[in-house]
Amino acid sequence: MEYQFSDRVKSLRPSAIREILKNSSAPGLIPLSAGNPAPDAFPYEAIRRVSAELLEDTPIEALQYGVTEGYAPLREHLLSYMNQKHGVGGEGDDILITSGAQQVMDLLTKTLLNEGDTVLCESPSFIGSLNTFRSYRARLCGIPMEEDGLDTQKLEKALKTEKNIKYLYTIPNFQNPSGITMSMEKRQRVYELCRDHGVMILEDNPYGDLRFAGEDIPSIKSLDKEGVVLYAGSFSKVVSPGMRVGYAIGPKEVISKMVVCKQGEDVHSNMWAQIVCHRFMTGFDYEAHLQSLREIYRRKSQVLIKAMEEHFAPLITWSRFEGGLFAWCTLPEGMDMLEFVKRAMERKACVVPGTAFLTDEGEPCRSFRINFSTPTDEQLTEGIKILGETAREMMK
Amino acid sequence: MEYQFSDRVKSLRPSAIREILKNSSAPGLIPLSAGNPAPDAFPYEAIRRVSAELLEDTPIEALQYGVTEGYAPLREHLLSYMNQKHGVGGEGDDILITSGAQQVMDLLTKTLLNEGDTVLCESPSFIGSLNTFRSYRARLCGIPMEEDGLDTQKLEKALKTEKNIKYLYTIPNFQNPSGITMSMEKRQRVYELCRDHGVMILEDNPYGDLRFAGEDIPSIKSLDKEGVVLYAGSFSKVVSPGMRVGYAIGPKEVISKMVVCKQGEDVHSNMWAQIVCHRFMTGFDYEAHLQSLREIYRRKSQVLIKAMEEHFAPLITWSRFEGGLFAWCTLPEGMDMLEFVKRAMERKACVVPGTAFLTDEGEPCRSFRINFSTPTDEQLTEGIKILGETAREMMK
Repeated sequence: MEYQFSDRVKSLRPSAIREILKNSSAPGLIPLSAGNPAPDAFPYEAIRRVSAELLEDTPIEALQYGVTEGYAPLREHLLSYMNQKHGVGGEGDDILITSGAQQVMDLLTKTLLNEGDTVLCESPSFIGSLNTFRSYRARLCGIPMEEDGLDTQKLEKALKTEKNIKYLYTIPNFQNPSGITMSMEKRQRVYELCRDHGVMILEDNPYGDLRFAGEDIPSIKSLDKEGVVLYAGSFSKVVSPGMRVGYAIGPKEVISKMVVCKQGEDVHSNMWAQIVCHRFMTGFDYEAHLQSLREIYRRKSQVLIKAMEEHFAPLITWSRFEGGLFAWCTLPEGMDMLEFVKRAMERKACVVPGTAFLTDEGEPCRSFRINFSTPTDEQLTEGIKILGETAREMMK
Repeated sequence: MEYQFSDRVKSLRPSAIREILKNSSAPGLIPLSAGNPAPDAFPYEAIRRVSAELLEDTPIEALQYGVTEGYAPLREHLLSYMNQKHGVGGEGDDILITSGAQQVMDLLTKTLLNEGDTVLCESPSFIGSLNTFRSYRARLCGIPMEEDGLDTQKLEKALKTEKNIKYLYTIPNFQNPSGITMSMEKRQRVYELCRDHGVMILEDNPYGDLRFAGEDIPSIKSLDKEGVVLYAGSFSKVVSPGMRVGYAIGPKEVISKMVVCKQGEDVHSNMWAQIVCHRFMTGFDYEAHLQSLREIYRRKSQVLIKAMEEHFAPLITWSRFEGGLFAWCTLPEGMDMLEFVKRAMERKACVVPGTAFLTDEGEPCRSFRINFSTPTDEQLTEGIKILGETAREMMK
């Protein structure tokens, strides 16, 4: 039989980068290309305990259908926790529990976007979200990144000239892939610009709790008094990604439409995982757990930085990062980045070419992304050494 | 701020039926309107045991990111089980694990449908699926049901006259809401008609294992040699709906597009739930478990039928059903069904008006749906008594 696929699926073309990365999980490869949390960051013992307890004391709740909005005790706890600790969510806001934060990107897009409408995003940005936007046939308009976050002048220009803009997508903390954190001044400016142009902000904050240097900066949502910002949170980096629990906090009117869309996608999110997250947050010292994660990633990042200082400097440079899982590295002028990535892969060190994160993969780009949470210390040091050698060889 | 919602969301208008059902979960109501599996059908003990084991022996696998296609051992086991036991899935087919079977409806629609394209469906049909199709702005074309399944002459006519048909949606076993099972003859005819017109079949089979009378009939997918049928299976009715584990078995080419779509929606399904399903299927006597479910529902259905014989006959009639969770009842000619449902609700017996399941809610309809798995035996008997009294009162 011959299949007639939808236009949206036909437009999802295979990427040149995927070809390069196709074999990146082959045995023997050093996985600097992944985005997995460090395995020793999972709170196994606690999850085992609360899982056993909940299957003992409320098995029906864990196994029966739930409501689309999410497990009520988790929703209530998160709303109050996020409000008290981060100033996120106020009077006019509501919360929806999702099947991972990726579903927040999906549901907001479904709720707001017609085919051909524009999404403003940082350039580079997280490829998973860009692909979700693309699956709704969004027109992506990239705003270049500076050291302290996106270029607000370019944002202002885009807001003035682009047509049918539905929202700005931003990851303000330890951005994937650039590692960059947006300054407070820029957060304020981004909020005001979008508000004044009637454009929503989708603030994606999966890494905010993983700061291992510098000072916390308030979220854009905490500035929101007018229902401009939808905030996406996630348990993937702080409890477990395999559970697929994320959440959206945003204007009631928008959340209620997202609920209808979610009902048609998966009815509701896994109940066991929602109850585990609730009990883990309320029955244990959650702040001490976050502190222990920051220690793990601080130590890992120091292994990486030491190796980069030894093997990269001064040929390959990297952006400053104060948290998260990624480092963004840039090759010297004139060096062919895709060729570099290919050669490094032949030597078993696998990184993601920077072009993967651009709204237009054809743009020139000399950067690549390193993940330091997945590899072991030995793999990290060995991988950086290989990358440095590869670059030096290409300079000859 | 003023929000501009997408056309697809704007077109999801609130339903008159939802208004009627809004208070159907209020305390004291008899829930004949639900669709939940019977709580005593959940294999608590087994789930507790495999959950404790897997969090002990493979915690990383359960908590780390997984691949979009699904947990490999579950995929392999299901493919071989469904092939050997039901003849479902052959050479050209692949499998995708989804977050409940609702996501199969969503992903196939995303993969095949452009706005305005046509979906053929049984009329009445499952409201959850119809709403998913509507969320992609499908044009729904209903094919009337007969006692042995959809009217194949009307199907043939629709295939000849409707434009841009992307697939036929059918629930061949103990259909929700009608309880009807499609005859073997009609399955063959439906398969040939769709194949000859190059139209896919989405075969949704959540209740197939819950047959408590009569003989199993082979699935439409088991007739498929040409990649016409995508089969949707689910653990919701046989293990637990709160886990949200379903699956699609269908042509490789179609499954691979659905995988890309799923990646943008929720990356992958909850790992714990996938591993629990795999271990439950392989580590226990799965056939004996299914047999015990059939006993539970056989007994429940007998309570219902006894009550209907006492309180409904001959005023209210019902369709014959040999499995599943639902009975489809019809009021005498001239009786206002929506008024009947309202009056029954005032007396605390809550059923779903048949119009909820039509492609056009405005069509005339004298039927309503009863669920017999959620209420207790006492609630069931009391509810049927109230419904019978309500109808007799309206005859006066």
